[in-house]
Amino acid sequence: MPDTSARERRPASYDVVGIGNALVDVIAQADDHFIRREALVKGSMTLVDTDRALHLYRALGSAVEMSGGSAANTVCGVASFGGRAAYIGKVSDDDLGRVFGHDLLAVGVHFAPGRHLDEIPTGRCIIVVTPDAQRTMNTYLGVSSYMCAPDVDEAVVADGHVLYMEGYLFDRDDAKDAFRHAARVAHGAGREVSLTLSDSFCVDRHREDFRALVEDEVDILFGNELELCSLYELDTFEAAVAAVRRDSSLAVITRGPRGASIITRDSVIDVGAEDVPHVIDTTGAGDLFASGFLFGYTNGFSLADCGRLGSIAAAEVISHVGPRPLVELKSLIPRA
Amino acid sequence: MPDTSARERRPASYDVVGIGNALVDVIAQADDHFIRREALVKGSMTLVDTDRALHLYRALGSAVEMSGGSAANTVCGVASFGGRAAYIGKVSDDDLGRVFGHDLLAVGVHFAPGRHLDEIPTGRCIIVVTPDAQRTMNTYLGVSSYMCAPDVDEAVVADGHVLYMEGYLFDRDDAKDAFRHAARVAHGAGREVSLTLSDSFCVDRHREDFRALVEDEVDILFGNELELCSLYELDTFEAAVAAVRRDSSLAVITRGPRGASIITRDSVIDVGAEDVPHVIDTTGAGDLFASGFLFGYTNGFSLADCGRLGSIAAAEVISHVGPRPLVELKSLIPRA
Repeated sequence: MPDTSARERRPASYDVVGIGNALVDVIAQADDHFIRREALVKGSMTLVDTDRALHLYRALGSAVEMSGGSAANTVCGVASFGGRAAYIGKVSDDDLGRVFGHDLLAVGVHFAPGRHLDEIPTGRCIIVVTPDAQRTMNTYLGVSSYMCAPDVDEAVVADGHVLYMEGYLFDRDDAKDAFRHAARVAHGAGREVSLTLSDSFCVDRHREDFRALVEDEVDILFGNELELCSLYELDTFEAAVAAVRRDSSLAVITRGPRGASIITRDSVIDVGAEDVPHVIDTTGAGDLFASGFLFGYTNGFSLADCGRLGSIAAAEVISHVGPRPLVELKSLIPRA
Repeated sequence: MPDTSARERRPASYDVVGIGNALVDVIAQADDHFIRREALVKGSMTLVDTDRALHLYRALGSAVEMSGGSAANTVCGVASFGGRAAYIGKVSDDDLGRVFGHDLLAVGVHFAPGRHLDEIPTGRCIIVVTPDAQRTMNTYLGVSSYMCAPDVDEAVVADGHVLYMEGYLFDRDDAKDAFRHAARVAHGAGREVSLTLSDSFCVDRHREDFRALVEDEVDILFGNELELCSLYELDTFEAAVAAVRRDSSLAVITRGPRGASIITRDSVIDVGAEDVPHVIDTTGAGDLFASGFLFGYTNGFSLADCGRLGSIAAAEVISHVGPRPLVELKSLIPRA
């Protein structure tokens, strides 16, 4: 992890610049019988091809379509807090692509869509929500996964206080190159680089590459307990905390209903989860925790308060269907 | 209104066959200031061209996309009650067209999409939901309005107990022809024909054609108080009741929070509205009232019970965002 603190920096136009898979979520409710019959792994994200996506879509009941994509959810949350955000991700010139672009612009996020590619449709994530509010994601990446280094708008990256990269995108070599390129551009401009691990299976598929990226380029690591343990192939959270401290000066690890831990070189700040009377759909919980943390981080809040903003945003998004806030998160910032 | 009761009928495969504008709803929340600034008429449906649709969409915040279309909502409600339903309406081979088709099939509605037309996109309805739960609709009809007589699947119409036609479709002469054709096919097969007036402005635009259709072909007329008064250009509900009795043997008129009136030649049955603790979005209220009524009517319930089923379905749909039920309406049928 390079030290950027000593370099001279001009003020950033954006608090957070996100890079990720640009996806429209197709959200349908189903019971556990459906999960078993389709051999799905509850709570995980699985990459699916066109045939499997069509099969699952046909097998599911009525669905609702709304913009998603992990890093896109995060930057929308930053904007909802009143922060300044930009997003880099690829969509096509089709209905879902237009929906995705609209929903970013509608909340004031600058959208840098990369180079145009014909014929490959906008990606979508078929999300099965079970009665226990768990979400099981089946992602047809479409054009979103064709991200490569030339799609990264360098001017935008260089103009963001924190670059936020979504681990999900890591499933293609071109995207890994795009990440390394974006991280170098950000560091070259004296900015900070963050990464979210996204999914323990994704970490499992690309452990060595993730480890190298975290060691070489990542200033702030986001993830959950399971993902962190998977990254270091360790069984206990305590051991993983010790491991991540060697690689990254700051790690923000969510722990479900137990809240989150903010891990620095020499301390662990535990943040409690907000009380949510009725959890409806956990989609976006981690994404929105990152929104709150990064909004706070880039606007001078203490680490404990950053964590609290993360908890507040996560609580809002799990109390309704859909991965993005339905109220202005700015209105939820505690007055104290 | 022809008397079909004496003709010999074979059992129908469908309880209800709907014909209407196949639309995907684009639902966004906005305040009254937005309504005023865009010169919208709250609670109404306005037809918009591509430019106006794009302008409104750009001006609105994040949206959710879900299948809509008045008659389509109604047949989905019939299916949700456990009834057998079919739908005739035009979509394109684009993302929104596929969404629309999926959501019909997903609830077990047979879909007869008419002849294929290239280049014209699937229609959409931009719905602005204000904090008072009122919906203001701006419809870009797209390919849905190209319905004409050859698109009407005669075998499906002849095989439905009740044909249900949506007044909204009446804005093009070709669609009027399609309605008259479908009505004749239905009556020729000894079936019943129903029509919903859809919107008082729509009635105003096509009053004479509506009057002729009601007099000549309609066995069951659906609408709300305002639409009925507009149809007969009368100021009071009582006068409109007297007028509709001359044209139609059965009229089902919703009256918002006051419930509904079922008007026969010699009686008026008043049905109270169900208690809804928190009205979220009134989109689909009339459509779902028709679902309950028609499910009951085609399954041997008394007229009063048909009205009660209508109220139950309407209450469900206004208690959440979106124009279609989120629970199986079958589960809400009172045991008595």
